[in-house]
This record gives sequence, structure tokens and C-alpha cells, in this order.
Amino acid sequence: MPIESKEEFLNLIKQIEQRINYKKPKAFAIARLDLSQVDPSKKLQANFGVINFEQNYAAAAVMFEAFFRRGVDVDFNESEFVATLIKEDLDFALECFAPFLQEQGHKNIEAIKAAKENFRENAFSFVCIFEDEAPKSLESVYLKLYLLSNKKVPLRSLNLTGAFGILPNVAWSDNKPIDLDFLRENEIDLKMSGRYPSIDYVDKFPRFLAHIIPEDNTRILESSKVRMGAVLAAGTTIMPGAAYVNFNAGTTGACMVEGRISSSAVVGEGSDVGGGASILGVLSGTSGNAISVGKACLLGANSVTGIPLGDNCIVDAGIAVLEGTKFALKNKEELQKINPDFNFDKDIYKGLELAGLNGLHFRQDSQSGVMIVAFNKKAVKLNEDLH
Amino acid sequence: MPIESKEEFLNLIKQIEQRINYKKPKAFAIARLDLSQVDPSKKLQANFGVINFEQNYAAAAVMFEAFFRRGVDVDFNESEFVATLIKEDLDFALECFAPFLQEQGHKNIEAIKAAKENFRENAFSFVCIFEDEAPKSLESVYLKLYLLSNKKVPLRSLNLTGAFGILPNVAWSDNKPIDLDFLRENEIDLKMSGRYPSIDYVDKFPRFLAHIIPEDNTRILESSKVRMGAVLAAGTTIMPGAAYVNFNAGTTGACMVEGRISSSAVVGEGSDVGGGASILGVLSGTSGNAISVGKACLLGANSVTGIPLGDNCIVDAGIAVLEGTKFALKNKEELQKINPDFNFDKDIYKGLELAGLNGLHFRQDSQSGVMIVAFNKKAVKLNEDLH
Amino acid sequence: MPIESKEEFLNLIKQIEQRINYKKPKAFAIARLDLSQVDPSKKLQANFGVINFEQNYAAAAVMFEAFFRRGVDVDFNESEFVATLIKEDLDFALECFAPFLQEQGHKNIEAIKAAKENFRENAFSFVCIFEDEAPKSLESVYLKLYLLSNKKVPLRSLNLTGAFGILPNVAWSDNKPIDLDFLRENEIDLKMSGRYPSIDYVDKFPRFLAHIIPEDNTRILESSKVRMGAVLAAGTTIMPGAAYVNFNAGTTGACMVEGRISSSAVVGEGSDVGGGASILGVLSGTSGNAISVGKACLLGANSVTGIPLGDNCIVDAGIAVLEGTKFALKNKEELQKINPDFNFDKDIYKGLELAGLNGLHFRQDSQSGVMIVAFNKKAVKLNEDLH
Repeated sequence: MPIESKEEFLNLIKQIEQRINYKKPKAFAIARLDLSQVDPSKKLQANFGVINFEQNYAAAAVMFEAFFRRGVDVDFNESEFVATLIKEDLDFALECFAPFLQEQGHKNIEAIKAAKENFRENAFSFVCIFEDEAPKSLESVYLKLYLLSNKKVPLRSLNLTGAFGILPNVAWSDNKPIDLDFLRENEIDLKMSGRYPSIDYVDKFPRFLAHIIPEDNTRILESSKVRMGAVLAAGTTIMPGAAYVNFNAGTTGACMVEGRISSSAVVGEGSDVGGGASILGVLSGTSGNAISVGKACLLGANSVTGIPLGDNCIVDAGIAVLEGTKFALKNKEELQKINPDFNFDKDIYKGLELAGLNGLHFRQDSQSGVMIVAFNKKAVKLNEDLH
Repeated sequence: MPIESKEEFLNLIKQIEQRINYKKPKAFAIARLDLSQVDPSKKLQANFGVINFEQNYAAAAVMFEAFFRRGVDVDFNESEFVATLIKEDLDFALECFAPFLQEQGHKNIEAIKAAKENFRENAFSFVCIFEDEAPKSLESVYLKLYLLSNKKVPLRSLNLTGAFGILPNVAWSDNKPIDLDFLRENEIDLKMSGRYPSIDYVDKFPRFLAHIIPEDNTRILESSKVRMGAVLAAGTTIMPGAAYVNFNAGTTGACMVEGRISSSAVVGEGSDVGGGASILGVLSGTSGNAISVGKACLLGANSVTGIPLGDNCIVDAGIAVLEGTKFALKNKEELQKINPDFNFDKDIYKGLELAGLNGLHFRQDSQSGVMIVAFNKKAVKLNEDLH
Repeated sequence: MPIESKEEFLNLIKQIEQRINYKKPKAFAIARLDLSQVDPSKKLQANFGVINFEQNYAAAAVMFEAFFRRGVDVDFNESEFVATLIKEDLDFALECFAPFLQEQGHKNIEAIKAAKENFRENAFSFVCIFEDEAPKSLESVYLKLYLLSNKKVPLRSLNLTGAFGILPNVAWSDNKPIDLDFLRENEIDLKMSGRYPSIDYVDKFPRFLAHIIPEDNTRILESSKVRMGAVLAAGTTIMPGAAYVNFNAGTTGACMVEGRISSSAVVGEGSDVGGGASILGVLSGTSGNAISVGKACLLGANSVTGIPLGDNCIVDAGIAVLEGTKFALKNKEELQKINPDFNFDKDIYKGLELAGLNGLHFRQDSQSGVMIVAFNKKAVKLNEDLH
């Protein structure tokens, strides 16, 4: 040590990876932690400068080697591993990376350097995920949220069971989490001196924009409207009226969003979620069925969608399409043509029976009050100006 | 002076409280004031480190004694009293509290100490309320809002008549109120130098989170969504889409809130105010009737409730239940059983006639457009993960 | 030089304005620019301390003279002109204004002084508009947004074609625009050091409150709810639930707004846009028809309006009035009286046919599901307390 050539480095990595039980992590990262102001052992938030998913295994190997050398026990049969970093870990890693230190673009090396520069005890950790099981640490919850929001993995593909129980509920002020107990213990002093912080929100999850840099042609007109763990395809616009995109939900193509995309709901390219429209989520409203909305759909203002939709569907403004809502079928022939695998042999369908079909137009007959599902004759097209 | 023992202190308090006309205040507090940047005599906001409601009368007595000694006239027949604090008031109070200064947990003493440390002329005042009449000062409006939001008194129990007229309309930046005239007078300089402040909102009322520390298992995903003077029971979650909780409104048990709880509306434990749902308020929508929603109710996405509801009611997504909406009654027997005091002798009821009944399910028949009220067969249960 | 008397100043102005081709600009202003953190030639935002519309031509003449003297080519046949200011321009202007420097209230002089004090290369520019054509520069887009929001011109009266293409999409933090590329290039360092900025939103347009000081009795309970380029008449209240006012849209009299006023929609005095109500905009929902809502209208909670309305109209809570919705007509006589120019000769009308009529009450019959348009018997009156 230090490693003097790239060849030597590769040999080291090979050695590490050949150790008995060693396993390459699916994902890993170095986290800077925000700790409680009253209990430094309590982690409030993890921040990642770079995350790795099925890549950069050498950097992971180097970190593991640092832990091995100081006798840290790593159980590669666990689903995840978290270790608090000490300064020696960072020094060791940089010695291993010596042949690369003059080169640009090695993001993990940059992260290690930055961690060293900003080092404080207990404020940095290494986290990796071996198997996608229920997360066991704040760091692995955050890593999964980063994997989702950075589009490393598809929506709904990660196990987030119990995440709500792992994340502490904190007050967020200007991106910094504050332990509610800190506020309680210091309320009198803070209030009487004019230093009581401006609290933006109180939640377990942070906001998307606190961690994610959106793609260039993406717009989020208010940061509270997108929770960390959401996914926004490039070209998506989130308006500030009644919109909301929960974690593990989002868009897979450019969309205009003025309504709610609840937890686990996914909306396809070119679709327009109108002002105040609600796509129900798995946490309430549907019978646990995650809702997908296809491409080029229009959910009218204040409409409600409780079933999955295919492509080119319209739900009229103010209409609620729920699993049990009954719809009289119109335009049987046209609908049959674009949905060849479905058998349109009834006159009335419940919402859930129509799940995932294309070209549906849901509306209420204004002269009879009857709910109708018909063939959608209009093509939905987003206004170019908005993108 | 200074007081040398707790016994001496108690004697002093007794003396003060036995003065002719003396009256113990129902509520009192020491306020730190935010003053106008252009007119120091204009109060913009009051901040309280601790408030007292029907308690700690000795601390109030000490403050009154400070005023008596310097000749301030206190009219105990008025509904409230406000005095600007001078340094001597604080010194006097601390001399009275001498026997307690080494002890922890005396919040009023802490507040007085902190006021002394941060003292500026006209920036601190003492406010107390003798009778709950229409407030006459900014300080008493704030004290009442604190009493509500801190759950010292029930919702709707305080007289807030005229509060809008007493509070000035100001620009809020990072918890600090800014006089709009300050911005006007300095606009050119602030804009040209890049120091124009980031204005979060312009309102007479501040936000709940600027003054109140929520209970541990309470979540407010966006601070603008809850106005000061609202009440959130522990376990309540306020989502950032279309939610809003106005002053003198809120929840009395753990609730999921994705819709609007308008002024004077109260929602019971276990209820779910769905995305975009509206509970109409006394300031508009109802004929001045404050709406209570009972326990375990579900207001579906984009539904509207203009009448009080009992327990276990459901309003379907997209449905508006207004005072004049006519509903065809179904399941008469089941409804009669759980509402023994109501006489279900008609086939059609106006919304207002059904006010406060339990187990109602409001929906629109999708095959006829007829509005129906039926027995709610489903139990509403909030998702555990959310709490 | 310097100019020694007001008479000399007026002579100078006359000379300038008599030059061949010289044209007085319709609007002009001096802008402080926020530049990209990674590319100083990229303008992110323009800030104006004062704007001029069909007034203060002398100040414009002085600036043009500064440009002429240093050989800047000004094409007065173009629709607009933008020049980066150099220190000499400001010095020259102040020399011209010498006879006025000791006087108060000359806002353009104040702006020039402030620009000089805060001068940085490329950070200040002069912009003027000769003809209202499609804007060609960031400065002229901002100047038009200021003209609208400052009520110098009526809503919908300016050509904003292509504005979306001219404004860069940026991250906004505490009123400051940040180039997304700056965040990308510095993500690791910012995240690892705890200095990653709190991003309030990502958009091309800034927010109204970042540039406009609302009139005294105007309330905006959350800054994200009003986009720059909107207009709010004094007495308007914007609630934080589901409200939104887009650019080139707004109110022309005191209104209560709890719903969406989409792009190009205009709402008249005394109207109440209920919680979650949607007024559709030209960018989606209407066939390009900009919607005006008249005076004293009530758009019920979660209602949708896709047609223009006259005065004293009510759309019931939860009802969608779209161009194609069919309504059965009631109260023909009463409606004929207040709409003498309209011929009520049919029993059923499409929404679009009823555009702009007065005194309409749109509702759905709760016993038949039939959509009805009737005479509005109730007068809509905003709650005094709210204003």
C-alpha cells in the first residue's frame, strides 16, 4: 500500500472478490448522514452523492477490504450491510485508488474524497444491498428510494415493506431534518430569541427535489408535490394546484400532471392527469391493485380512476371510475377491434372488468345520468408549449 | 426583594391575589413580537415560548405585581389585558422567582429569562385573557390560536370574532413577517442588489408549523396545508396534494387527510378525507352550520360534504352531499337499527335531514343517475402503514 | 456634460427623440440578471426594480443616447431591443439626470443608481418593447410578465407566443435560479458536505411573489399557487388547498380562490372559485377558447367549468359544465329577462351554446341524474370576514 498501478489494483480486487463467501452487492453507496440534534446515535437522513446499481463492483470490494482489515464482520448471507465509516476506511480506499486519483469521472472516488474532507464521527456510512428483501436500515431504505427515483430500477420492482417503520418522523427545514425533540427541548429559547426554524414539512420521507436532479425538460412547480422515491420521466410537468406524486409511483413518459398519482400508480407517455384528478393508490381506494394508466390517456379535471387503463382512454371531467361502477357499453365494434383479446359480450360492465383495455371513453350521459363506456374517438395530445 | 424562600414567594402571591378587583386570568403568556420594518409601533406577529391555560396563576400574579409597582393601570373587568414589557418588569419577576431559579422545568421562568436575554424595546409583551370575548389585540388573537392548536381548549370553543380585522396582512419569509410597505419602499434597491426576499406567503394568519410542534406520529407533508389555529390529533397525516386544514378546524383522532377541512369543520378518529374531498366550512358552503364528521368515515376522492356526518359513513368518490341534495333511501331497517332515535319514515331525504346519522353510504346509482343513501356495509379502516 | 439644468435636460431629450428612425418604446426597464453558475453567458432570470409602460420616455431616450454614443446599433424597426449595460452607460445616464439627482421619487434614476452600486459585468441589461410581437429575449418575456402582473395592461392583451421556448428550465432556491447543470456537476461535493441547496421548484417561470408586491388586502396563502404573469385584483384571496393561478390568468375584482384558474382564464369581481373547482385553460380542456367568468359567480367545490360564464352564475359542487354537456333548460322566462339578447327557444342546450349568459344555475337533478340549467335565485356574496 498504496497501490501503485492499475494492474496491481485489479489484482487486489480479484483477491477480494475471491474470498470465501464474498458476494458482489446489487447496489451500494457511501452515505452522508444527518443525525439527531439531541441523540447523535439517531440517524435522520442519508444523502448519496453517487449510487451504484449492478456496477462499479471494484469500489465495493475496496470498501469491504477496508472493513475486513479492521476486523468488521460482514455477513454476506444477509440481504443488506451497513457500516459506519471511520477515517481509516477512507484513507485505505484512497490508497487503493491511488492509480486513478489524477483521473476525472470516477464518481465513487470523488465521493470518498468528499467524505474524507467533510469527515465527522458517525456521519458517514457504507450501505449495500445483496438481496431485495424488506429493508432493515435507514440507509437501505434511502438507497432503494434513490434507485427508484434515479431510474436504476423500474417502479414497483423493489421491496419497501416496513419502510415507514424504519424512517423517523422529523421536521424538515431547508433540506435539513430536525429531531422534533430538539424543537421541544429548545422551544422557549428559540421562540423568545427569534431563532425558531422555518419548518417546511414534517414527514418520514424527504422530498424528491431534496435528492434528485430532474432531467432538463422536466418541471416540478412545487417541491412538496413529489415525494422521494417517485419517478418522473423526462418531459413530465407537475403543476402546483392539486397534483401529487407519491413514492414508488410516477410517469414512464412525458406527462402533464395536475392531479394525484398515488402510491404504486404508474402513468404512461403522453397522458394528461387533469386538474384534481385522482389515480387511487394501493394504500387506499383500490383492493390492493396497483393502477397503471397507459399512453395518451386523458383523466379529466376532478375525475377519479380506480382501475387500470390501457392506451388512449378518456375519463370525463368529474367522473369516478371505480372497481364497482357499472357502465353501459357503446361502440362495441370499434372497441372490439382495438381490444381483440377481450370479449365484449355484455351490455353492462363493472369498472374492474374493463381494467387495462384500450380506447375507452368513460362518461356520464347528461340527459339520463347513466354511466357509459364508449369508444374514444379523440386522440389525446399534450400541448407542445408545455414541453 | 429579592424573595428569599418559597414560603415568602407564596405569601407574596397571596397578597397580590387578595388585592381588590384582582382576577386570575384564564390564559396568559409572554410574547415576543415581530414588529414592522417601517413602523415599529405596528405589531406583525406574537410568538410564545409557553402558554398558560387555567394554570400557573402565580406567574401571572408576579407579572401583574410588576405592573402595579410601576403604576400601570390594569382593568380586571376587561376581557383581556396587554402590556408592553420593560426590562424592569423582567428583573422584578426574576427577583420574585429567586427561590426557583436553580430548579429545572419552570417554563414561565425560562420564558422570562429568555425575554430578558433577548430584550429589545417594545418587542415583548404580557397578554392575558379574563373572559373569552371577541379579541381586541394581536396578542390575544395569537394566544387563542395557540390555545386551540395546543389542544388546551376544544375546537370551536373560543370567540375569534373580528380576528381577521386585528391581524395585519403581511408577507412571510422564512417564518419572519415583513411589512408589505417595507417591500414597496425598498423594491428597487432589493431587486437591483439581489436581496429581494423569498416570500413564502402573504396572509394575516401564520402557518401551524411556524408555532406548533406536532406530536410524534403526526405528519404534515407541506407546511402551507395547515393554518395556525388548526388542531391535529396525534396520528393525523396531512398530504400535500389538495389538502388543507383551516384555523379552528381539524381532527380529534388519527386521520388521513388528502382533502379540505374548512374553517370550523371537525373530523373524528379513523376517518379518511380522500384526495380532493371538500368538507364545507362556516365561511362558505353551509348555512353557517359547522360540520362534524364522525369516526371511521370515508370521504371518497373529490367528494363534497356539506352536512354533518355520524360515524362509519361513506361518501363515494366524486359525489356531492349538500344540504339540499335529495337522496332515495335504501336499507331502511339496517339504518334504523344503528340510528334508533331517527324516524326513517320517508323514501326520499334531503341531505340536511340526514345530518349526523351513523352508517350512511352516499352514492349515485350508475345505471340511473339517482342519488342514493344506503346502509354502509364496509368498515373503513386506515392503512396501518400510514401511521 | 453633465447636464446642468432641467431645461438643458429637456433639450437633450428633444434632440434624441428627433433623431431619424427614433421611436419611443411602449415599455422599457433596466434588468438585473441572474446568470448561470456554469455558463455566465446564459441568462436565467430578469429582475426589474421599476418598469415603464407608455411613460417616462425621457429615461428611455437617455439610455438610447448612451448606446448611440458608444456605437451600439439600435434597430427601431424591430419589435424589441435588448442591450447589456456597461458601467459607462450608467455613468452617462446619471450625468444626464444630474438636475434631478437630489430629488426623491424618480424611480428610473433610483434603478440606475442601484445598478451602478451593484454593477457586475453582464449582469444588467436594458430592454424595451416597440411592438407587441412574439418575444425574442428572456428580458422581454419578463418585461411582459411584469406588465401583466403589475396591471399595466389587461390580461390576454400581450403576445407571449414562444415564451416557453425562450425561458430556460431552472431549479429555484430561495428566489435564486440555479442551472441544473451546476447541480449535476457538483452533486457529489454538495451532497457529501451538506450544502446541497433546498430546491423550491423547477420551472421556466418564476413565482408571482418573487417579483410582485401584492396590494394590501390581497392574500396568497402559498407562493407556489400563483405563477408570475398572473393578475390578482386587490381583495383576492388564494387558498393553499387546490388553488392555482397560471400566467396570463387571474381576477379582475376581489375573489375567493380555492380552485384552478388555468392559463388565460379571467374571473370577475365577487366570484368564488370553490375548493378544487377547475376553470379550464386554453392550453388544455377548451377548444382554445379563453374562459371568462363574470361577477358574483360561484363555482362549487370540485366543479369544472369549460365554458365562459356571465354574471351571477352558479355551478353546483361536483358538476362539470363542458362545451358538449347537454343541459335541460328550466326557468326560461326568468332567464330571458336577464339575457334579452339570447333566444331561449330550445329545451336542451349544449354547454358552449350557453357561453357568457347571466344568472345560470348548473346542477344535476339528484332524483333523475339529468343535467339542468336553471335561473339562479341566490345571490352569491363573499364572506366579509375573508376580506
